[in-house]
Amino acid sequence: MTTLHRSFAAAAVAAAVVFGPAAIEAADPRVPAPGQAEVQWKLGEPPMPADNASTPQRVALGKALFFDPRLSGNGASSCATCHNPSLGWSDGQKTAVGFNGAVLGRATPTIVNAAYNTQFMWDGRKKSLEDQALGPMQAPDEMNADFAKVLALLNTLPGYKAQFAAAYPGEPVGEETLAKALAAFERTVVSRDSPFDRWLAGDTRALTPQQHRGFQVFADPARGNCAACHNGPNLTDNGFHNIGLAGTGTPDLGRFNIRKVAAMKGAFKTPTLRDIELTAPYFHDGSAATLREVVDHYVRGGDDRGNVSADMRPLKLSEQEKDDLVAFMRALTGPRVAIDLPILPQ
Amino acid sequence: MTTLHRSFAAAAVAAAVVFGPAAIEAADPRVPAPGQAEVQWKLGEPPMPADNASTPQRVALGKALFFDPRLSGNGASSCATCHNPSLGWSDGQKTAVGFNGAVLGRATPTIVNAAYNTQFMWDGRKKSLEDQALGPMQAPDEMNADFAKVLALLNTLPGYKAQFAAAYPGEPVGEETLAKALAAFERTVVSRDSPFDRWLAGDTRALTPQQHRGFQVFADPARGNCAACHNGPNLTDNGFHNIGLAGTGTPDLGRFNIRKVAAMKGAFKTPTLRDIELTAPYFHDGSAATLREVVDHYVRGGDDRGNVSADMRPLKLSEQEKDDLVAFMRALTGPRVAIDLPILPQ
Repeated sequence: MTTLHRSFAAAAVAAAVVFGPAAIEAADPRVPAPGQAEVQWKLGEPPMPADNASTPQRVALGKALFFDPRLSGNGASSCATCHNPSLGWSDGQKTAVGFNGAVLGRATPTIVNAAYNTQFMWDGRKKSLEDQALGPMQAPDEMNADFAKVLALLNTLPGYKAQFAAAYPGEPVGEETLAKALAAFERTVVSRDSPFDRWLAGDTRALTPQQHRGFQVFADPARGNCAACHNGPNLTDNGFHNIGLAGTGTPDLGRFNIRKVAAMKGAFKTPTLRDIELTAPYFHDGSAATLREVVDHYVRGGDDRGNVSADMRPLKLSEQEKDDLVAFMRALTGPRVAIDLPILPQ
Repeated sequence: MTTLHRSFAAAAVAAAVVFGPAAIEAADPRVPAPGQAEVQWKLGEPPMPADNASTPQRVALGKALFFDPRLSGNGASSCATCHNPSLGWSDGQKTAVGFNGAVLGRATPTIVNAAYNTQFMWDGRKKSLEDQALGPMQAPDEMNADFAKVLALLNTLPGYKAQFAAAYPGEPVGEETLAKALAAFERTVVSRDSPFDRWLAGDTRALTPQQHRGFQVFADPARGNCAACHNGPNLTDNGFHNIGLAGTGTPDLGRFNIRKVAAMKGAFKTPTLRDIELTAPYFHDGSAATLREVVDHYVRGGDDRGNVSADMRPLKLSEQEKDDLVAFMRALTGPRVAIDLPILPQ
């Protein structure tokens, strides 16, 4: 077991799918090794909370709210400003640009397939989409919403009142229904049917030979070892790892701020790799501009400023293997889903 | 001729359609009075500049650019931030919120049917969509773009390079093609086939009786007199008028800044009324929250802080006529056009 796996064990998070590196069958990773039937990559339907089952009304309401800049303190930014569908539901920035242009310390995570997550925010301080939805809206350096004003607006505009009543009959228009509606919409932002998914489903030509080689490097503990953390259908263990990134400005302790165990110092959530080619730049500090730079980081076993993590061992990869790995990551992009902008209630 | 018409004459702008109040035939305004054949409301195809004819490639490129926040100085706002399709291609704000949250002095005008305009910006300082497109991008208090960086980005991303080559073969990726592409996209943002248009085309049931009465008030020089300025297919004379608005903060001289004739002091461009119900609040200073407040302004003959214009005469309208006028304005909303967000080149 590598030190990286110790870190994973230390996180002790409830990962939906447990993936041990021993389970990798390099020749055909679709086939779990005997006794490892729990290993699988196939993406099913996202889990749905009992008190917020998806309905068309909830999704439509959540979509309107998601795109509504009037939910921010200056009326100029919506959830979609940072989680921009045109940029992989992220923002294309190194780190997020928040309220009135404030440059924040961490990168905007995509919301693609957040429906499958069990940890939210880079440090996992939120545990569900409902729990997470109002955080950035309320944060003074993000949307800086005045909730009293937001709720007054939602309770005033007839269009919103009607939509809330249809989506959550009998429940007041308030923070809870606002968060639920946003979560219901976010659960529809799902990337599936990528070449990798089609290959898993049996279409052997869905991956190019190079992408197939890349998956083998990805899953092989002795080479990429990526699947040690980027495992399961959503290619994340929902765990936290220190991968040797200095971050921007003052040291960012990441998960340690939430959970005071030494292994969590500088540890951040493993992001999904779904649609990864659409969400550059990479890492919680946005320090890798391209997928190749991500690979180079792991080959170095730390960032290009000499930062290393005790959890990291440098990878030994040939140039060909690096290229193959990047090619595989490009096979994780789902088909484009049309996002038709809502007309907002006035 | 009222003083308001003198102001219109003083503007001496090249309006595509000249509309004299005498031409109104109140009983059936579709039918021009004898000898007034130039009077018409039917919206045709927008004019197209010879050197920037519409092609699917130009429109697609312009759409990507329009939605790309990387064209702004902080990477956080695009043309669509203020010209938001979800808010009638405007922003729902009293006055625009620009770079890093700067509150600007004038309201964001919609770009709906800008394709038909001959005057751009509230003071008409731009004369074409191509001429206008880069202004807000470059303005330090709006998008604050660093053009050298923007052009470097567009010349670097393979996706953009290919799109420019397809849209403007043989022309360099530069300010000119950037402006042309944006203009080509903006020309597709057209509102037509509203109930009013269908009524003009002969569908006598397309307007409700109240909306029909409202049009009669609208066009009648002795009652609404709206068509004195809001005339022609796009419901604007492309002229400038002082309608007695104090504006925000220091007095805004409007068109006078561009054209130093006394009649232009405090005069602003007549906006289109197409899709007007979607673009609240109203006026260049955003001082009217609703269409009813707009009507009330004209009934007062000035704003609610005692500002008046020598060009304005207070209207005499019954409560019924005011309601009818608002109902007519709601008949100017075209059917919703789906705006599918582009995936931006990375």
